[in-house]
Amino acid sequence: MSYFRDNIDKMDGYVPGFQPSAVDVVKLNTNENPYPPSPKVLEAISKITTERLRRYPDPLGNAFRQAAAEVHGLSPENILCTNGGDDLLTMVFRAFCDENRPAAYPVPTYTLYPVLAKIQNCPVIEVPFDSEFNLPAKLASAGVALTIVCNPNAPTATVINKNELASLADELKGILLIDEAYVDFAEDNCLSLVKDFDNIIILRSMSKGYSLAGVRFGYAVANPTLIDGLIKVKDSYNVDSLAIIAATEAIKDQQWFKRNVEKVKSERQRLTDSLRDLGFPVLESSTNFLLAPTGDYKANEIYDKLSKQNIFVRYFNVPGLDDRLRITVGTPPQNDQLIAALKKILER
Amino acid sequence: MSYFRDNIDKMDGYVPGFQPSAVDVVKLNTNENPYPPSPKVLEAISKITTERLRRYPDPLGNAFRQAAAEVHGLSPENILCTNGGDDLLTMVFRAFCDENRPAAYPVPTYTLYPVLAKIQNCPVIEVPFDSEFNLPAKLASAGVALTIVCNPNAPTATVINKNELASLADELKGILLIDEAYVDFAEDNCLSLVKDFDNIIILRSMSKGYSLAGVRFGYAVANPTLIDGLIKVKDSYNVDSLAIIAATEAIKDQQWFKRNVEKVKSERQRLTDSLRDLGFPVLESSTNFLLAPTGDYKANEIYDKLSKQNIFVRYFNVPGLDDRLRITVGTPPQNDQLIAALKKILER
Repeated sequence: MSYFRDNIDKMDGYVPGFQPSAVDVVKLNTNENPYPPSPKVLEAISKITTERLRRYPDPLGNAFRQAAAEVHGLSPENILCTNGGDDLLTMVFRAFCDENRPAAYPVPTYTLYPVLAKIQNCPVIEVPFDSEFNLPAKLASAGVALTIVCNPNAPTATVINKNELASLADELKGILLIDEAYVDFAEDNCLSLVKDFDNIIILRSMSKGYSLAGVRFGYAVANPTLIDGLIKVKDSYNVDSLAIIAATEAIKDQQWFKRNVEKVKSERQRLTDSLRDLGFPVLESSTNFLLAPTGDYKANEIYDKLSKQNIFVRYFNVPGLDDRLRITVGTPPQNDQLIAALKKILER
Repeated sequence: MSYFRDNIDKMDGYVPGFQPSAVDVVKLNTNENPYPPSPKVLEAISKITTERLRRYPDPLGNAFRQAAAEVHGLSPENILCTNGGDDLLTMVFRAFCDENRPAAYPVPTYTLYPVLAKIQNCPVIEVPFDSEFNLPAKLASAGVALTIVCNPNAPTATVINKNELASLADELKGILLIDEAYVDFAEDNCLSLVKDFDNIIILRSMSKGYSLAGVRFGYAVANPTLIDGLIKVKDSYNVDSLAIIAATEAIKDQQWFKRNVEKVKSERQRLTDSLRDLGFPVLESSTNFLLAPTGDYKANEIYDKLSKQNIFVRYFNVPGLDDRLRITVGTPPQNDQLIAALKKILER
């Protein structure tokens, strides 16, 4: 006999990418930014007072909302702080979905979506991408309460343009969540759509472009009516004082952020070229990672061989993805190490 | 037309206690510890590396699990880290409750429970305490999936003894969550019950005894089967690296913790006596706050007058609580200021 609900018993939990405890590894498996966050973050953290630790945080993280609103040319009422982007995903499933209110999204995509749907016990409609990862036309007619488009998409690294997503939002009767966790590395974004559409929520993360995966900070951008509704389902104090301080300093330092993003983009191009030289037909990436089909070689075997050398990439043992590897763009020496290791593996 | 589920539209969100942004106030309204956390916390935070900020946290916070297990004489597999105690409350509602699986708890108690039930759309059975806040016998026969006993209870500050809760767990077919957020200030606790009962989950918080309300850290203690099930419904990275570091250092420094707790308990006695001298029949408290019936005076009027002097206590505008104030035990000077202000208010 189990004490849990049936849907919980029957599901598998989400398995996050392996987090090696050793520091001395080439870690290209969970899409962290290879460069450190703004020095202002560390400076602000080291100045935290015991008074701030002792007291509850600001429940809404207004210092961050103000800073993010200024960066984006929006108002603080358009912003909601979340404990990582995943916290927002949990909130939208709880706010919009249930047994009678399904969710839909194109696949392959972020594998947390179906896990959250199972916890919420809501049906999902998974609409396959075509081979070029265009927006599937069927998505508009699925008739669901919540449609999610991860854009740029993980793990394909591909992007759908803003006008297509605006048309989709226009056709939908429910919410369109655009998961922009990786958008810092893309050429465009959908923020401006929240002014025109009352059913669009944009997810943003401080983990990728801002190098703050360790502090768990994301945010929603939407019209104030949606933000107010989401506040009702969020944990009272979902983001802590240290995270608010770190994220606020990071988003204020746009110069540091942009320089880091440019460095990643430049290495992304170099890594793409090197992998193509090895015979892997890598797609163009709009993110900080590459999806690399491994051609004649078995992806899982390459994965194992790299792991043994303390080089960690991501392998998904699911149909459509099991013939390729997802590789985070690292620093130049890390990328060099990866390429050198791959060359040796392929020579054997 | 609303995009939200009906239950979300119809509910009011939980309203956390007022968090004044000014530091120069007497803040006795949200049960923070008036004393700072262990100096080792600040020391460890100031040593955080950009590498830790850049990388994802350990999904399970194993450093904390290990430290907590040692303190409690349990195994790390008995411990689950949560983003504040509230995160665990959210998890248990999602893991055990739905439309057909109700929750039950004695009232008055922590007002977040009904809010979480509404979000989960699960029925609740609220069983009134008697006038002495004994465990209501009806609780055992409610036949629900999740029974919650806040112990010591907020906002009554009263406690139910361990044997009674063991008997309750024995009678229940579902889960018994014992919310021990305030237990650091009580004379006993229920931790040992998790060895004997496969249906007991203990909630602990680092916000009260350990003075870390600002970092949002709580934990569950239960048998490993329950912990494994809860891991499936938790956010992948629900606690951040800074919070893990802070909480781990805090729980390791038992000497500092115990000294702070003793200081609070001693002031609790002094404040209780002073309030009784003013004619408020304050109940004995097993927490770091007092529930003070205001006798002939209107509680809300006293609350307003104190607020105007920047002295913040908590007033609940609900039947059974609207004739009293909940007052956090502060430092000796804070308590003196409160008593002096109350004396003047009552003289008028």
